[in-house]
Amino acid sequence: MNFCSVCGHPVERKIPPFDHLPRYVCPNCGTIHYENPRLVAGTLPLLGNQILLCRRAIAPRIGYWTLPAGFMECNESTLEAAMRETWEEAGARVRIDALHALLDIPHIHQVHLFYRATLLDQDWAPGAETLEIRLFPLSCLPWDELAFPTVRRALEYLLRGEATSLTPQGAVRYPTLPLVETLLPRSARP
Amino acid sequence: MNFCSVCGHPVERKIPPFDHLPRYVCPNCGTIHYENPRLVAGTLPLLGNQILLCRRAIAPRIGYWTLPAGFMECNESTLEAAMRETWEEAGARVRIDALHALLDIPHIHQVHLFYRATLLDQDWAPGAETLEIRLFPLSCLPWDELAFPTVRRALEYLLRGEATSLTPQGAVRYPTLPLVETLLPRSARP
Repeated sequence: MNFCSVCGHPVERKIPPFDHLPRYVCPNCGTIHYENPRLVAGTLPLLGNQILLCRRAIAPRIGYWTLPAGFMECNESTLEAAMRETWEEAGARVRIDALHALLDIPHIHQVHLFYRATLLDQDWAPGAETLEIRLFPLSCLPWDELAFPTVRRALEYLLRGEATSLTPQGAVRYPTLPLVETLLPRSARP
Repeated sequence: MNFCSVCGHPVERKIPPFDHLPRYVCPNCGTIHYENPRLVAGTLPLLGNQILLCRRAIAPRIGYWTLPAGFMECNESTLEAAMRETWEEAGARVRIDALHALLDIPHIHQVHLFYRATLLDQDWAPGAETLEIRLFPLSCLPWDELAFPTVRRALEYLLRGEATSLTPQGAVRYPTLPLVETLLPRSARP
């Protein structure tokens, strides 16, 4: 940030009165330009014991598999954002079932929210950001070709539920509580 | 937004290629200025059957009672943000116990996250944004003087757990699942 978006004057970096962090402040109009983390919302689109994944057509991580997810827009809820991204990236309509994971990634200023969802039909089609869509059996996920650490954690947590609690009919029982976790940068991991 | 924060040129409002929403775009340097919802993080600081509330010293809603909460900063997790706000507004140190509520407020472009927490000592003191701090018995909350709808919902949900499930010893048992809800503008409420 070099210029004030309100008046066009060059900004300064300083700690405003009554604050404790440096901000971009405009010495001309007085506007304080706060910067905040961004929310990414997505779904785990399930159909029985299978899950829909998207192979990315865009950077970063072109060609790798991901859950449908993207930056939340203004004027929508996290549920609406998750359903919209599922529609845009996979052409898939879903019913949201439960909050599945809240994953903090402080070093890139993002919070990722994933909802567990049920696919309402099988009429999906890749969106502009997707090369290919595939339904993977939960027992056969492409672990070596996942796009992002948060996608991996969300899927691992889904399977933890499966591993520990099959219903008497053999159906999958998913975790009741959402996963709440902070992901560290690669350099800081044990 | 009137000017590009990167190069200082006046911005235009238009739908970028491959996008579907109007954005502020710089015709000079090409930067697209996305706007996203902001995250507010806070706690429900509990001590047995009592909860700590803060009476606000600043606008909006001066003089009304609130949970310690505020805008999340970059480079921190939602848990860290919730604990920091509890420290800044109430001088209180807490242990985070569980995600309590995820409340969407699309019309003001905010998502509020509340964690249930346990007060670690009783050395609290009002911060600069707080007039007064009080421990309220859960049976005697200031319902008519609460600052914000999300604070009300978070407290109502806390008590729902209490009402339905006292332990044999009479201790409070809080809800297991987080509340996930979208709050509508006053004009749209039934």
